[in-house]
Amino acid sequence: MPTYKAPVDEALFLLNDVFHIERYGNVPGFAEATPDTVAAVLSEGGKFVEQVLQPLNRIGDIEGCKRNPDASVTTPKGFKEAYHSLAEGGWIGLAMEPEYGGQGLPHTIAIVMNEFMTSANMAFTMYSGLTQGAYVALRMHGNDEQKKTYLPRIASGEWAATMNLTEPHCGTDLGMLRTKAVPQPDGSYKLTGTKIFISGGEHDLTSNIIHLVIARIEGAPAGTKGISLFVVPKFLVNKDGSLGASNGVSCGSIEEKMGIHGNSTCVMNYDNATGWLVGEENRGLPAMFTMMNEARLGVGVQGLALSEVAYQNAVTYAKERLQGRSLTGAKNPDKPADPIIVHPDIRRILMTIRAFNEAARAFVVWTALQGDLVMKGEDEKSRQVADDYMGLMTPVLKGYLTDMGFQNTVLAQQVFGGHGYIAEHGMEQFVRDARIAMIYEGANGIQALDLVGRKLGKDGGRAAMAYFAELTGYIKAHANDEAMKPYVKPLETALADLQKATMWFMQNAMKKPDNAGAGSYDYMHLFGLVQLGYMWAQIAKAALEKKSKGNGVAAEMETKLMTGRFFMERMLPETTTHLARIQSGADTVMALPAEAF
Amino acid sequence: MPTYKAPVDEALFLLNDVFHIERYGNVPGFAEATPDTVAAVLSEGGKFVEQVLQPLNRIGDIEGCKRNPDASVTTPKGFKEAYHSLAEGGWIGLAMEPEYGGQGLPHTIAIVMNEFMTSANMAFTMYSGLTQGAYVALRMHGNDEQKKTYLPRIASGEWAATMNLTEPHCGTDLGMLRTKAVPQPDGSYKLTGTKIFISGGEHDLTSNIIHLVIARIEGAPAGTKGISLFVVPKFLVNKDGSLGASNGVSCGSIEEKMGIHGNSTCVMNYDNATGWLVGEENRGLPAMFTMMNEARLGVGVQGLALSEVAYQNAVTYAKERLQGRSLTGAKNPDKPADPIIVHPDIRRILMTIRAFNEAARAFVVWTALQGDLVMKGEDEKSRQVADDYMGLMTPVLKGYLTDMGFQNTVLAQQVFGGHGYIAEHGMEQFVRDARIAMIYEGANGIQALDLVGRKLGKDGGRAAMAYFAELTGYIKAHANDEAMKPYVKPLETALADLQKATMWFMQNAMKKPDNAGAGSYDYMHLFGLVQLGYMWAQIAKAALEKKSKGNGVAAEMETKLMTGRFFMERMLPETTTHLARIQSGADTVMALPAEAF
Repeated sequence: MPTYKAPVDEALFLLNDVFHIERYGNVPGFAEATPDTVAAVLSEGGKFVEQVLQPLNRIGDIEGCKRNPDASVTTPKGFKEAYHSLAEGGWIGLAMEPEYGGQGLPHTIAIVMNEFMTSANMAFTMYSGLTQGAYVALRMHGNDEQKKTYLPRIASGEWAATMNLTEPHCGTDLGMLRTKAVPQPDGSYKLTGTKIFISGGEHDLTSNIIHLVIARIEGAPAGTKGISLFVVPKFLVNKDGSLGASNGVSCGSIEEKMGIHGNSTCVMNYDNATGWLVGEENRGLPAMFTMMNEARLGVGVQGLALSEVAYQNAVTYAKERLQGRSLTGAKNPDKPADPIIVHPDIRRILMTIRAFNEAARAFVVWTALQGDLVMKGEDEKSRQVADDYMGLMTPVLKGYLTDMGFQNTVLAQQVFGGHGYIAEHGMEQFVRDARIAMIYEGANGIQALDLVGRKLGKDGGRAAMAYFAELTGYIKAHANDEAMKPYVKPLETALADLQKATMWFMQNAMKKPDNAGAGSYDYMHLFGLVQLGYMWAQIAKAALEKKSKGNGVAAEMETKLMTGRFFMERMLPETTTHLARIQSGADTVMALPAEAF
Repeated sequence: MPTYKAPVDEALFLLNDVFHIERYGNVPGFAEATPDTVAAVLSEGGKFVEQVLQPLNRIGDIEGCKRNPDASVTTPKGFKEAYHSLAEGGWIGLAMEPEYGGQGLPHTIAIVMNEFMTSANMAFTMYSGLTQGAYVALRMHGNDEQKKTYLPRIASGEWAATMNLTEPHCGTDLGMLRTKAVPQPDGSYKLTGTKIFISGGEHDLTSNIIHLVIARIEGAPAGTKGISLFVVPKFLVNKDGSLGASNGVSCGSIEEKMGIHGNSTCVMNYDNATGWLVGEENRGLPAMFTMMNEARLGVGVQGLALSEVAYQNAVTYAKERLQGRSLTGAKNPDKPADPIIVHPDIRRILMTIRAFNEAARAFVVWTALQGDLVMKGEDEKSRQVADDYMGLMTPVLKGYLTDMGFQNTVLAQQVFGGHGYIAEHGMEQFVRDARIAMIYEGANGIQALDLVGRKLGKDGGRAAMAYFAELTGYIKAHANDEAMKPYVKPLETALADLQKATMWFMQNAMKKPDNAGAGSYDYMHLFGLVQLGYMWAQIAKAALEKKSKGNGVAAEMETKLMTGRFFMERMLPETTTHLARIQSGADTVMALPAEAF
């Protein structure tokens, strides 16, 4: 059976020593996030996920969700109780506004808790994760009555929420959606249509489920400009706040899928369901994007979270499993064999995952911090800088972290040999669960296209230029720092590759957009590598500082410094291949006529 | 529901136009393998797998195998009938000796049929695949009586066979095995012990199952030098060939696993089971290796086979699914959207898989041909050359092809977006099935170590030097051929990387073996890339020749030439990263003490 220990100290190191969040004391919510409070919250949160959520992970996978004949859905044994504990502990509202009953802590802290929860039980965490995303969309785009009606009970965990976009014939291309909304005299709408792949679309965890649904108002323009956002509660809410009649929305079936069996992925049928417009007519897509950026960050975290839990279990196995002898002589001469952690190829796997995890966590925390600044930054300028960063890096974070997260679950499974293929060890579940993160909230190919086709050139390339300038400045500032050379030098090379790739797009994709499309995926990975390299440089700097101060953490900091060097020497050089592929352009990619396939 | 069409023409192109198997007419079995016969056999085989095996693939996954209370095992519905059809069609004995009832065709032909079968139904094909491996081991190491007793009924498909190596505490490290064999006065042995992960260990497909088992004879030396090979039939065989008493071997349980549910992966309990020594006492491991090389080639084929079937289904979906518009303007203006095959990132995926499949198939066919030459080559020298090649390339073929095969099933699944995660499309089954091939018959890390630690330096590096000389010669011979430049130039660069890596090991791994271990996995991939590059060069040459002759195949040959260029420009440059990683050595890989993990 797999185990999990929340990496609380790792998170605190990032928050305090690498990113010094005490510097943001002027930003609302951050003043309350003192090092002591954060340590207490995360350590409490860690215990909660270890004790309550993690033991339900395998059960969730085995039992799955069941749709009953009355279209209700039963979640796996223990999920309901765990959800209530989660709500009671205030975890759902951790970063929600106090005026709606939330704890008002920065998202930067909530994202760490989100990682812990996902490592412990991804399928379970999706119920509250999407609820949090819907909260943000309603808070930003809902009217006062909607906010008053829904937000407090979402923040308390009494009600859950979902996000309904995909239809059978349209996923990525939402302009084709058919679900229609017919205006009613009382200002409400009647929604009719079918939505698929709705995570947590129906379940027994909460007394109500608030669906955010995109649909086309009768007579609206075709394409994406005719899409509006609606709130459609499972049970209508009376004026006094009590639950009223059942609404015309129901679960048609639960999808049989590769993983995340503990989450009910529903086909949702809307049959004259009553809904209310959220925000402006035909402005549903921008509103939904608010929620999607939130969700994409959350999905990126899933990549990290599964990589982390898979890593932990692979380490345990590698230390326990006796097989073969070290190439440099027996390390365990009294036993019939050495633990497999002595073998370089097992080390290669463990170091690869670890070097990813630590930098990916830094990337996540830093990005969540920018997200807080977008909302609550002190001045216009700092909000814009943070917003530029978020726009540019969200597709990188989602795409690169989920690709690597999946790859790492596969690597960790490999450490177990044949035992990794057997269900009881839990490693194959991590692989199956991690796989979805590369697909949903915009398949990773779409993230790559978003990055290259939209984000890179936005506002005259302002975000990318700021990013390059920041890294160039960082590299220059540390050019003469001997201890930082093993990190800064490779970063410089990798950044040069990224800039060459960017330049190549500028020179070759204007006239021939396929040149951008054909290189977009490699560019996303190239960007991800550079960003993790930058994170490692900052981690190394913090580790050097901390080491120099003593405090008995020298060995720990040495470990970080070595792990960073592993990343720099063995992982970062991949940028070369990505650059070569980008520069080869679209010719060989697009040359064949479709019939040749 | 997934579909499959056996790529008969692709195989014939390789056999006839690329490798010209008519040149081997002097080798036993090849004279009968005329182009017409081979075309007829493969086209018949293709139909068989499409009509009989492929429709059972999903059923096998859903139903799985059931162990009944009497320890018998029921395979999925339809498997038994299909196995009988397979046997009746003579497919099991396709490459087995006529004296035992086989068809006597070259393995080179059988391996192609093996690919077709595996694409159609991997779990099913494992039953006959391991049976074929056991046949070879018995034929090479069994005594006359054993051969007479078992081989004809294995060749006819009346009986199946298995291979029993792994025990709970030892997989890779077989020296630790505990199953013991006690000599009996009549020359037989009594075997007692537990074997795990036994594919097809028990089933209802055949009237008897012949287990090949490794065990330690009482008093034998410790370690791998005390291992002997035994044949242990499920039912004892009477003198007259009829089935006698049930033997002391039974299925203790069926493993719950990630995929290949249609194959019964059994825990096998040996409880004073009667067995007979195969070959010499304490020489079981070398005998078992005969079977394992065979099996490793078969597992490499699984990587190709799943990549191929996943590719075919991704192509179909990419042509049918309408979503978004081409970056270069609508290709399908009358429809609401273009088929997704217009998008460069979808093309990237399809081309990546395709460029792998065609060269991997060439690699497989060429290797199987060398396997035939090892056994039946005209003279000592040609047998030795082929044997050197087989020793060197078996780990590359197994490790690289299964890694890439798995990766390609993941890529193909990605083309389907969310639908790829849903079971009914069958794409996620390919991923789950393909995953095991990276693990069994020696996990890929072990293949890499076998390559670098054993095969590279064997006989003074004779095999590797011959390989490098062959490629260098090929490159030189085509240096002035303009049409071949797009293939030969990149191959030259990649080969140089491979040679640099080899040199680096020679200079750095003698004193510090961890330097070899830390780079072995990258070296295996580097070797695989070069080998596929070499295959592409040969395919391109054949395509150029065929194109020049006309015959209405120009478009088809152009497609090959372009696919080859895609490989050369976008896939082969990965060698650079592998070389960089190898040259970074073991320092960062091995620096941390085990406690730091």
